[in-house]
Amino acid sequence: MSPHPLGKILQPESIAVVGASETSAGGRYVSAMLKLGFKGKIYPVHPQHQEVFGLKCYPSVREIPENVDFVISTIPANMVLSLIDDCAGKSVKCIHFYTARFSETGRTDAIELEHEVLRRCRNAGIRLIGPNCMGVYYPGWGMSWTTTMSNQPGAIGFLSQSGSAAYEIIESAEVRGMHFSKAVSYGNALDFNECDYLEYFGEDAATKIIMIYIEGVRDGKRFLEVLRKTALKKPVLILKGGRGKSGTRATASHTASLAGSMTVWNTAMEQTGAVSVAHIEELLDVAVALYFLPAVYGNHVGIAGGGGGWSVMAADLCEEAGLNVIPLPDEIRQELKKAGNPIWDWVTNPVDFSIAPVELIPSYITKMMVNNPNFDLNIIFIDPQRNRGVVSSDVLLNEFPWNDLKKKPLLVVLLDWGRNAAGTDIASSELYRDLKNKLIGMEVPFYPTAVRAANAAGKMIGYYINRKKNLAD
Amino acid sequence: MSPHPLGKILQPESIAVVGASETSAGGRYVSAMLKLGFKGKIYPVHPQHQEVFGLKCYPSVREIPENVDFVISTIPANMVLSLIDDCAGKSVKCIHFYTARFSETGRTDAIELEHEVLRRCRNAGIRLIGPNCMGVYYPGWGMSWTTTMSNQPGAIGFLSQSGSAAYEIIESAEVRGMHFSKAVSYGNALDFNECDYLEYFGEDAATKIIMIYIEGVRDGKRFLEVLRKTALKKPVLILKGGRGKSGTRATASHTASLAGSMTVWNTAMEQTGAVSVAHIEELLDVAVALYFLPAVYGNHVGIAGGGGGWSVMAADLCEEAGLNVIPLPDEIRQELKKAGNPIWDWVTNPVDFSIAPVELIPSYITKMMVNNPNFDLNIIFIDPQRNRGVVSSDVLLNEFPWNDLKKKPLLVVLLDWGRNAAGTDIASSELYRDLKNKLIGMEVPFYPTAVRAANAAGKMIGYYINRKKNLAD
Repeated sequence: MSPHPLGKILQPESIAVVGASETSAGGRYVSAMLKLGFKGKIYPVHPQHQEVFGLKCYPSVREIPENVDFVISTIPANMVLSLIDDCAGKSVKCIHFYTARFSETGRTDAIELEHEVLRRCRNAGIRLIGPNCMGVYYPGWGMSWTTTMSNQPGAIGFLSQSGSAAYEIIESAEVRGMHFSKAVSYGNALDFNECDYLEYFGEDAATKIIMIYIEGVRDGKRFLEVLRKTALKKPVLILKGGRGKSGTRATASHTASLAGSMTVWNTAMEQTGAVSVAHIEELLDVAVALYFLPAVYGNHVGIAGGGGGWSVMAADLCEEAGLNVIPLPDEIRQELKKAGNPIWDWVTNPVDFSIAPVELIPSYITKMMVNNPNFDLNIIFIDPQRNRGVVSSDVLLNEFPWNDLKKKPLLVVLLDWGRNAAGTDIASSELYRDLKNKLIGMEVPFYPTAVRAANAAGKMIGYYINRKKNLAD
Repeated sequence: MSPHPLGKILQPESIAVVGASETSAGGRYVSAMLKLGFKGKIYPVHPQHQEVFGLKCYPSVREIPENVDFVISTIPANMVLSLIDDCAGKSVKCIHFYTARFSETGRTDAIELEHEVLRRCRNAGIRLIGPNCMGVYYPGWGMSWTTTMSNQPGAIGFLSQSGSAAYEIIESAEVRGMHFSKAVSYGNALDFNECDYLEYFGEDAATKIIMIYIEGVRDGKRFLEVLRKTALKKPVLILKGGRGKSGTRATASHTASLAGSMTVWNTAMEQTGAVSVAHIEELLDVAVALYFLPAVYGNHVGIAGGGGGWSVMAADLCEEAGLNVIPLPDEIRQELKKAGNPIWDWVTNPVDFSIAPVELIPSYITKMMVNNPNFDLNIIFIDPQRNRGVVSSDVLLNEFPWNDLKKKPLLVVLLDWGRNAAGTDIASSELYRDLKNKLIGMEVPFYPTAVRAANAAGKMIGYYINRKKNLAD
């Protein structure tokens, strides 16, 4: 199999940013590459500047003394045709058009211009990313569209039709400890489309999990084929925008694609083995479980922590997410009895720590549950509010049997009652941050609520079970 | 109609806390009442202390020189029978048994003891709250079970079978600007049960909205009758714990009640007109909309803010929550055209602010939407991350047409990408807090995600439409 053409294109030796001044959208690409340490040459292009962020600036692509691999166009739509002609003379392999106001406006002249862009690039042998998109985020190669995104490489490949959704998804993922191999915001997908990016990420060795934000598909048949093939190799999470009447309307004015029927879509997704999610939070919730945790093919869950009401509700939410909240295994009961624990016959799964505040310390029971072969996975509750001033995050975390975790998935519900954000409780806010950072360091996914942890666990297990079945077919 | 007996019982002139030392659970009740400014007399009772938090302490209830209205029992279960005898001699009207380890343990001797407690109280004419519960939170009267709950009275009446759930719900509600008329954590409900508390809150003038956390119902027929009658008067939100197999198991060991079949439950709830919710977050989301917003009987929603992807997804989530995301009304389009706005023919509902960053400022379009009669309600997105360093919360908030809001519901999605909690962005964290506090001050409900705002709006409208229908029947 020959390497995917996007492999070379997404790793350019030189990039020209057309329309780059220090205050323009083009300038943001230049400063982002400088900050993230882009490994090749950067050529800012702007007729009115000699220098941009300390780099020599060229009046046009033609004036750049060497050939250029990759061009980022941030100039207005009415100027792009001559840019393409300039690029043709510089052996440019790909132009990323940040430039917008093409077919997504619904206006006839803009649609015609978009057609002409494609025709002219094809003639010149230039491939296209976009138009109307943020382009490439490749932390390992120093490519980004903002200075705020991390330069730490990771295992997620991400293709997004929307730039604003991509931005939010990337930044939110990083807060939860996930990092990216590459992400592409691809907008109107005039040349490379969702199928190409997905196929590429399927082949890319650095990519372990793929996330997709998509509004409309250009080539439905091929997309489903690539999706099915890719989901057999690695988890693929797909968030579909434009599911309803109004979303479809908004899609048209956003990235000029047709959204299609949701019924057809859902049926198709089930068959591909990709994990369908309904919103950004769910995308990240499921992704972080797949990112950190070992594969799991059973749904017997042990739950520990929280008071009585919490335990009851956690059990409900886990069952509603397709997990099986089995009764507390008898070995654990017998071990508690042997240790003289007075509630050995009363405690159940979920374990309600509040019924025995001293004897049944969280680390002790959690260790027993993590090591018990009857559980396929565990969910525990940590409440930084309750522990403030009593247990530091060090003690709280060191008490837990973290060394035993890599054998079996563990998800943490890190309760945040919201008081931190209201500023009434700074101490617990710091503890909360410490806990988050430590959990990330130990590669334990955490969730703000029980329902989100339960749902993520259910969808993660669903992916692995589905893949096993599809591989056997 | 004679006043409900709970009215007098929940507003005692004198309270004895039995088992109160400065370090005990009983002491927490004493210090909470002192902090919240309980309006009557407090008598700590403990055989080993002369004084508790500066108050004279009595060796037993018998030794208290005057009669006592209300007793909080925090002593072990094996000591309560003699306490009841003591209370009988002091004209005690009600005992709240914080004391646990009765029928919820499933043990024969504990169940028998619980029966005897009831029998002896009945003989003495003493009513019971609990056992196995936190009891009464009545901020306007200075009654609470922790010092951390607010002394600010509000309009929510809340009955909860679980103490830990009640605690979390109350504290989380306060962070979102909701306050309580009274809340009762009622545990095993040996005497007063869910029907009594619900009936009382239905009659209580200070209570505008009722929240229920319930695991099992004692008297199903009466409960449904009271629920239906109450939901015609004021919104009733009900969170049922113990919906599944394992939740039912956990319920038994938690508050010794039977959970029953969920199918029967759901059908019954639909008929009563109460709003059924699945977890704490949903309970609070719907409650805060009902708490702050005027009644609304239509589902035509206008959405504004966020980029393209956000707009598409917000439209989807609103439709999936039962809202109707109507096309942008022509008056707004014409007004934009008249003002020379270049995207007048392109902009749609949801309004994507990112397509025209200068001309289409959020306050301008939001004002038009809030005032447009085609919309029954509006949802807007505010992103403190994007605005940090650019617009202060004052400017951001003052720009919005807040004065027009009281006519029509407006829900805010206050985006929090989570970077604040990770401690990477303190400035935006402060802005976030400012925004939250101002929104609360202006009685605008806010949500961390689009899906939660959409769902809350859908359930709020559902309540009002359902009530109108039930009132007409």
